[in-house]
Amino acid sequence: MTKTPFEEEILSRIRPTPEEIEHLRTISERIIAYLMEYHRRPSMVVGSVARGTFVRGDRDLDIFMLFPPDLPREDLAKEGIALGRAIVDHFGGTAVEKYAEHPYLNARIYDLDIDLVPCYHVASAREIKSAVDRTPFHTRYIIPRIAGYVDDALLMKQFTKAGGVYGSDHMTEGFSGYLCELLILHYRGFNPLIRAATGWRPGLVIDPENHRTRSFNEPLAVVDPTDPNRNVAAALSLDQMCAFIELARAYQEDPTEAFFTIRRPVSFTRKQVELAVAERGSALYTISLPTPPYVPDTIVPQLRKSAAAIADLLERSGFPVNRTDCRMGEDRSVILFELLNDTTSPIVRHIGPPVINGDNARRFISKYIETSPLSGPFIEDGRYIVEVRRPYTEVATLLSSRALLDAALGKHVRKSMAEHGWDVASGADCWNEDLSEFLAAFFERSSPGVRIMRMGRE
Amino acid sequence: MTKTPFEEEILSRIRPTPEEIEHLRTISERIIAYLMEYHRRPSMVVGSVARGTFVRGDRDLDIFMLFPPDLPREDLAKEGIALGRAIVDHFGGTAVEKYAEHPYLNARIYDLDIDLVPCYHVASAREIKSAVDRTPFHTRYIIPRIAGYVDDALLMKQFTKAGGVYGSDHMTEGFSGYLCELLILHYRGFNPLIRAATGWRPGLVIDPENHRTRSFNEPLAVVDPTDPNRNVAAALSLDQMCAFIELARAYQEDPTEAFFTIRRPVSFTRKQVELAVAERGSALYTISLPTPPYVPDTIVPQLRKSAAAIADLLERSGFPVNRTDCRMGEDRSVILFELLNDTTSPIVRHIGPPVINGDNARRFISKYIETSPLSGPFIEDGRYIVEVRRPYTEVATLLSSRALLDAALGKHVRKSMAEHGWDVASGADCWNEDLSEFLAAFFERSSPGVRIMRMGRE
Repeated sequence: MTKTPFEEEILSRIRPTPEEIEHLRTISERIIAYLMEYHRRPSMVVGSVARGTFVRGDRDLDIFMLFPPDLPREDLAKEGIALGRAIVDHFGGTAVEKYAEHPYLNARIYDLDIDLVPCYHVASAREIKSAVDRTPFHTRYIIPRIAGYVDDALLMKQFTKAGGVYGSDHMTEGFSGYLCELLILHYRGFNPLIRAATGWRPGLVIDPENHRTRSFNEPLAVVDPTDPNRNVAAALSLDQMCAFIELARAYQEDPTEAFFTIRRPVSFTRKQVELAVAERGSALYTISLPTPPYVPDTIVPQLRKSAAAIADLLERSGFPVNRTDCRMGEDRSVILFELLNDTTSPIVRHIGPPVINGDNARRFISKYIETSPLSGPFIEDGRYIVEVRRPYTEVATLLSSRALLDAALGKHVRKSMAEHGWDVASGADCWNEDLSEFLAAFFERSSPGVRIMRMGRE
Repeated sequence: MTKTPFEEEILSRIRPTPEEIEHLRTISERIIAYLMEYHRRPSMVVGSVARGTFVRGDRDLDIFMLFPPDLPREDLAKEGIALGRAIVDHFGGTAVEKYAEHPYLNARIYDLDIDLVPCYHVASAREIKSAVDRTPFHTRYIIPRIAGYVDDALLMKQFTKAGGVYGSDHMTEGFSGYLCELLILHYRGFNPLIRAATGWRPGLVIDPENHRTRSFNEPLAVVDPTDPNRNVAAALSLDQMCAFIELARAYQEDPTEAFFTIRRPVSFTRKQVELAVAERGSALYTISLPTPPYVPDTIVPQLRKSAAAIADLLERSGFPVNRTDCRMGEDRSVILFELLNDTTSPIVRHIGPPVINGDNARRFISKYIETSPLSGPFIEDGRYIVEVRRPYTEVATLLSSRALLDAALGKHVRKSMAEHGWDVASGADCWNEDLSEFLAAFFERSSPGVRIMRMGRE
């Protein structure tokens, strides 16, 4: 509600202009009228444009076309796409077909980015047949309540965007627009929300309609007012929740423009990568594979899982991992490893059975008594131990080997690697133009609050 | 009781000869008579000679001189040593003063190694004033019971000696002679003991007199028949208990002479150390310090503790440790480390407080925001992390630094290192004549049963 003069100044820059609002309203009304008049198809504007909570310059329009719930799913998709194409033809524009839970059309009409989404028109959010059916209910819930909090919602969205915690996709694991709005409503404004967030703890449950029917395991639970079973904050990771807590604290201590300024990502040249690796004295390796043909929300978690599985294999193989990261690109995806050393001693110890476990102990001994291990079997803490030779003493050989495919990789990642192979690069050779921002972020990694505080000191 | 022909053959070689027995009896009787006649001092023969359970060639005689319990401790020591010296003078011999819980005289008279030990003559083992007072009670307990089991006790002693598990000192952590005898009595013979041991499990409690007054944490508890509070097997480590289990199994499967053959320890030349290090591709380091002036049972555990503490420091410093060992020598003691790498990347991550812990989080951030860490602070699993530069990237520098003195070293070990400094050696330079057996044992480490089984295959 009440804003500081500083926040009013920010708002004056991020509030949509009357022209923008008018333009979006005109276009959306014309599309809705066209759908009803020519096709007898009811539709509605959803999302931040419908709720008046979009930030200046965000020219994204979401139009949901409502179909009866008894229509088979394939027909919904077919008719929805056909209707979308009719709109694009009628108004003149371009479109690409996309796919979330079911297909939709991403169109460009005039200068607007418009998603044309078919969905089922169900009676309540508990009867939805797919996630998109829920969106109209969200819009209907927010609209009557957001009046008086629109500026707060704008500040929250700009704040989370500038802080790198806006977006509920699997790469960001942050705050969705709807979540921002519900938090603003719950705390009655941006500043009360910031104040509260400085004291947030994982396990916090916010239930605006006080109707939840189950418990939630996620670090933050905001029970969907339109569905007591659903956590609107399910996508928010612990670390992004913590990043928001940090941003809130830093903002409360020293509120500056930097908290609302969206910066261009830093980018590293090949030379800068070379210098960073030299300074850190670590071993940098990437594996790159053809990106499997699925959406980021499918592939990004698989890349993360694969990175963790390979890191585990590296650790077990004598190559301690400092950090990993991954990036899904248009054509190729990359998993990056920073290691403390890229060669290791050939010794590896196998931990055998407890000596008191007679049968296993006999089997273990008779296996190793025939061969000539480096040492052992000997007894340590009641178990048999044997020291044998590692198959890999150089990490590059291991990363290039088919042994990688035995790690617990993501399904599509493994398939892509098994079918097409993968490239291994090290040091400055990891760099290419596409990875210049990714590598900069890796080396200059810091939490958003720390980054902003540092800017204040420069 | 019943022995196999093979065991009878072993016995024919290890049973003391009648001449030996006669010689020991004569000398001991003369010493006891001398003490009573010239000094009115009662005394007794204890240990395996008294019990007739000594192995051929073991010419150790233990004579305990019994003093009244009201004699002050200093007087006991003074009078005991004086009496010992009188014996040596009378019979003609040499002696050195030694120190266990109190002083005693280690004498050489004729060709025998004789310990002359003053102790208190108490009424029961529960009234003892020092550990040595207990010994006469053990002898009095065993003598009337061991008849019929002397051969079994001899086999058990020879078996444990050849297997490297005989001795209750801190270096061996094995079976004392008294423990061997109690086990033989409990299981009624060597072969029943071997059979039982193949199925032993840690936590086993043997209580011959069924009088224990407390529980025991050690892997094997054999309650002292002369003291319900005491575990005769307290010094036996889990690993040496397991080694005996393994020896018992291997002996049962294939009883050969090797199980009773005491071998000369293997010894490595400098060249052999060089080859072993090359084959293993590991980094070998020793630190050597002046041996602190205390008995092995004080210093050996301190060397072990120091090895573990330094290994922990090395691990935390980026140098993964494969194995450590230590050796207490006459002049110098050595702690040995085998590492997987001897250089490491300068990156080290400091794990900071949880982000939700506001005060600590603020302190952590403000500390690292001023400096320029390699990366961070950033957030991982809800905690702050910062990557900074390690003080040591080469293990030789760390092992030579005073930082070692901050590790949880044994008291006298730290004192020796702090006062006199220490030497660091690496690779083949770790070798010297004194360490030739120690290093061979380190590289050729295997459990005793495995070693004997391998010999059978050669």
